[in-house]
Amino acid sequence: MSYAPPLDDLAFLLHRVFEVARSGIPGYAELDPDTTAAILSEAGRLATERLAPVSRAGDLEGCRFENGVVRVPEGFKAAYDAVRAGGWTALDLDPDYGGQGMPTLMNSITGEMFVAANMALDMYWGLTHGAYNAIHAHGTAEQKATYLPKFASGEWTGTMNLTEPQCGTDLGLLRTRAEPRGDGTYSVSGQKIFISSGEHDLAENIIHLVLARIPGGPPGVKGLSLLIVPKFLPTPEGTLGARNGVSCGAIERKMGIHGNPTCVMNYDGATGFLIGEPHRGLRAMFTMMNEARLAVAAQGLAQGAAALAQASAYARDRRQGRALPAPAEPGAPADPLIVHPDIRRALMDMRAFVEGGRALMIWDAMFLDRARAGDAEAEGLAALLTPVLKGFLTDRGFAATVEAQQVFGGHGYIEDWPMSQLVRDARITMIYEGTNGIQALDLVGRKLAQDGGAPMRAFLAIVKDFLREAEAGTDAEFKATFLDPLAAAIGDLEAAVLTFLRVGMTNPNAALAGSTDFLHLLGLVCLGLMWARMARAADGDTAFDRAKRLTARHYMTRLLPETALRRARIEADPEPLLTLPAEAF
Amino acid sequence: MSYAPPLDDLAFLLHRVFEVARSGIPGYAELDPDTTAAILSEAGRLATERLAPVSRAGDLEGCRFENGVVRVPEGFKAAYDAVRAGGWTALDLDPDYGGQGMPTLMNSITGEMFVAANMALDMYWGLTHGAYNAIHAHGTAEQKATYLPKFASGEWTGTMNLTEPQCGTDLGLLRTRAEPRGDGTYSVSGQKIFISSGEHDLAENIIHLVLARIPGGPPGVKGLSLLIVPKFLPTPEGTLGARNGVSCGAIERKMGIHGNPTCVMNYDGATGFLIGEPHRGLRAMFTMMNEARLAVAAQGLAQGAAALAQASAYARDRRQGRALPAPAEPGAPADPLIVHPDIRRALMDMRAFVEGGRALMIWDAMFLDRARAGDAEAEGLAALLTPVLKGFLTDRGFAATVEAQQVFGGHGYIEDWPMSQLVRDARITMIYEGTNGIQALDLVGRKLAQDGGAPMRAFLAIVKDFLREAEAGTDAEFKATFLDPLAAAIGDLEAAVLTFLRVGMTNPNAALAGSTDFLHLLGLVCLGLMWARMARAADGDTAFDRAKRLTARHYMTRLLPETALRRARIEADPEPLLTLPAEAF
Repeated sequence: MSYAPPLDDLAFLLHRVFEVARSGIPGYAELDPDTTAAILSEAGRLATERLAPVSRAGDLEGCRFENGVVRVPEGFKAAYDAVRAGGWTALDLDPDYGGQGMPTLMNSITGEMFVAANMALDMYWGLTHGAYNAIHAHGTAEQKATYLPKFASGEWTGTMNLTEPQCGTDLGLLRTRAEPRGDGTYSVSGQKIFISSGEHDLAENIIHLVLARIPGGPPGVKGLSLLIVPKFLPTPEGTLGARNGVSCGAIERKMGIHGNPTCVMNYDGATGFLIGEPHRGLRAMFTMMNEARLAVAAQGLAQGAAALAQASAYARDRRQGRALPAPAEPGAPADPLIVHPDIRRALMDMRAFVEGGRALMIWDAMFLDRARAGDAEAEGLAALLTPVLKGFLTDRGFAATVEAQQVFGGHGYIEDWPMSQLVRDARITMIYEGTNGIQALDLVGRKLAQDGGAPMRAFLAIVKDFLREAEAGTDAEFKATFLDPLAAAIGDLEAAVLTFLRVGMTNPNAALAGSTDFLHLLGLVCLGLMWARMARAADGDTAFDRAKRLTARHYMTRLLPETALRRARIEADPEPLLTLPAEAF
Repeated sequence: MSYAPPLDDLAFLLHRVFEVARSGIPGYAELDPDTTAAILSEAGRLATERLAPVSRAGDLEGCRFENGVVRVPEGFKAAYDAVRAGGWTALDLDPDYGGQGMPTLMNSITGEMFVAANMALDMYWGLTHGAYNAIHAHGTAEQKATYLPKFASGEWTGTMNLTEPQCGTDLGLLRTRAEPRGDGTYSVSGQKIFISSGEHDLAENIIHLVLARIPGGPPGVKGLSLLIVPKFLPTPEGTLGARNGVSCGAIERKMGIHGNPTCVMNYDGATGFLIGEPHRGLRAMFTMMNEARLAVAAQGLAQGAAALAQASAYARDRRQGRALPAPAEPGAPADPLIVHPDIRRALMDMRAFVEGGRALMIWDAMFLDRARAGDAEAEGLAALLTPVLKGFLTDRGFAATVEAQQVFGGHGYIEDWPMSQLVRDARITMIYEGTNGIQALDLVGRKLAQDGGAPMRAFLAIVKDFLREAEAGTDAEFKATFLDPLAAAIGDLEAAVLTFLRVGMTNPNAALAGSTDFLHLLGLVCLGLMWARMARAADGDTAFDRAKRLTARHYMTRLLPETALRRARIEADPEPLLTLPAEAF
């Protein structure tokens, strides 16, 4: 697969829209244009030259399972080693434990490129990054010293073990047991499924973070503990000791991400080390899960971005039909696809999503970095936005891959082109780390009411402050084109919030019936804010700035008005969907 | 895969909503409830017992290509023979040529069941049906006698050969040549790609209908001729003669429909027989293509229906989480998924689409049967609706498979369940027989203005007549619940038509920028009419009727309002999408 990193777009966002170096966020002062350009062009080169070229092989060949061993696809090891050699696995990690100490922002941006170029390969170190942060936040000094430098260097990789056959979303049903041995260690037994990177030959050791029950704890989710279960037990000298009692029983045959094994993991009295306190495992796991949800949001966006780039190139190159009212290239046998209005409509829809989503990821990363520095309001906003980014960017990212595939006609359906893979890979992002239905439940059932609704109020205030300030600094045309649509969308959002406040107390099910619509409504408003900010920043007379303003107009006139439909659904009587008897389905 | 035919729903539609036996359509008088029940239950049994059980094997095993021969998946031959033995390949064909002379309607209805149970297998005789009708409409008496009875019995199968590597949508680019030999036959040479069922071992002979150029014809699409190119040349005695110069060069590796081979076909001086007149081939091919487009619409609907049935069963069975405000089944470890509002919302969305789409297929088949009997207005309406059914039912059918897959969580992504297959198979329906973008172009660029706009006016009159008549025969609550939303949607449709009338003359590109939105707008109105009619017919106090009315309400309050968004997009300034320079994409 070919890949071209969006370096110009990233520079525009970092320095003209968000003005990161002047944002006052700790660590951002160093992010001047030269520095970010150097980092991003290097990451882009790695994505283009090392990751993208092995992506198709990863899909077509997939992982092989032989006698408990998983072999990654041809070329993955060399590409992974190049990533490690460049230090990309440690970019924003703690310098005390092997990290480079960059802001989260830089990891997020480089992540989009790596995922767009090769999602299945990125997953190996993406999950490791989450395991690092979980142990960093909740582990002992000894655990940190043992595992974190190895994670940072990519010598060892990490996994996240929640799901069991009877227990997906509902972690209360979890059965895996961790029996104390009396020596401070635990004996872990049970079966976990859907474990990404659970077994492979990329790294010399694999460290599993496993949710399990220690006997005597309360039932349900309150009785879960988190344990470190290494494939090879580390020795005090930091070398590999005995093989632990954990093994891969099978890998799943699945729709996509063939280059990353989805493993059945069997724990048979494996030695485990508790992270944090007994029965408090969910809290530690959530550190990892929140990060994973944002990583999945980035996957949705990145797959959409990769698909758009493919479709744009194809539409410029492939000739079918003629422009109206006259041929664009009369000397050629046919005009390029790009002359057809419906092809342009599709590409502009994707573009408005991808560029808006990219801005949103950066905006969110800035909240994360503020939160990391102790800003409580930023932490609340990041918590509010996490399910929105996960649900919205993956639903729309998947839709973008489908739309891009459509541009290819029949060629999009055969595996000679990368479009089928992009669709099949993107499909998982709507499912894992909590289905998008669960994200909507988290948003409406938890985040909206969190801290008495403070994060939602803070969000509304940010948009309204922007509208006020932008109106003062721009002309009437800018207001009519970019600010009025956003103001209308904010009206829909506030109305929806009021509806939930009204019905939520007496009939929570009525509110939850509109939860997916609310997630999309909030996502649309977020992109509306991003596009208004981008339109304002793109005030030059360059081709880049003109394209930005045209795309912003496209978003405002054709995509943002969907907020009214989402609001109408939220305000609709949910009785039909709540009252149909189960047996009638 | 398991399958349960929608027999109750079909009986409701045929006899209570559309009252087919009293419709006055030629051949419908015999379609009394007993007769249709006998036919449909038999077709349903075949779908359930013979087709569905081999569907997964068809996907997982796929077709094998060995030395020019294609082997269909295990079990396909026996299932196909059962279809043939039951006479299902000949249901609505001409009794003079091996058919059973039933209305198109019955073939459409049984088709949904066969496709839902096993789409890849149904395609073998689905395309044969189209080849039958093309030769029936345009062939000589001798051609009819030679090919039609063999097609009707399923002894031979047919294909449709349009696409070439450089020529997909734009048939003007077609290069395959047919040189007259002077003996009434032609020598056909060229390469065709994406030929479904192009080579296989289900039938003893395969008859290719091939678009080609006879030298001396005009360039572009006006110079195309249609030829019959049999794999084995039939002898005058009706047996198989010499092997013809046509061969399968490869089969495509593709996203889905693995049970049906997508072939590269090489014609090397193959003997061909002209259908109809030279250079008039496109007309004959369109007979086949229009039928194929409706068959594809049915595929989209059927895959959505199959996916909904799977998701409903899973949601009733799988236990995760708890109902609010109190557990539904306190004694069980968790409640079934069906208690969760967002799961119900998803299932109701799918249900409203599937049941509405099924009604629309029947309504359309009734126009086709009227047209077959010489009704010009019905022919115009069918022509108007063909791109709508193809585009709308496949876009939404695919979306339904994705939504259904979502209900399964991670289990929907692995190939142990049929959900990935349903999504992957449904995906092709948006692409082949003219991408859905091409359907939108056909609708707005051609069908809307056909006969001075008569079909569109006839459609609007049908909906308005219904509204008037229904308002007179029902109460205020029925009007507010079911008729007012439809009236609002018709307002959006009329406004969109006016916009196209206004801008279409001066700026056709501006109209085409809204073509996909218009296709969906018209599709939404069609389903609105279907649901209003179903709500009126479902006037009893049975569980079935209550469920119908609840689903109708769900459609009216949550899905039909999308017409306003579609209208807004059509009315939006298309300048941003029309003016972005090609090189900026």
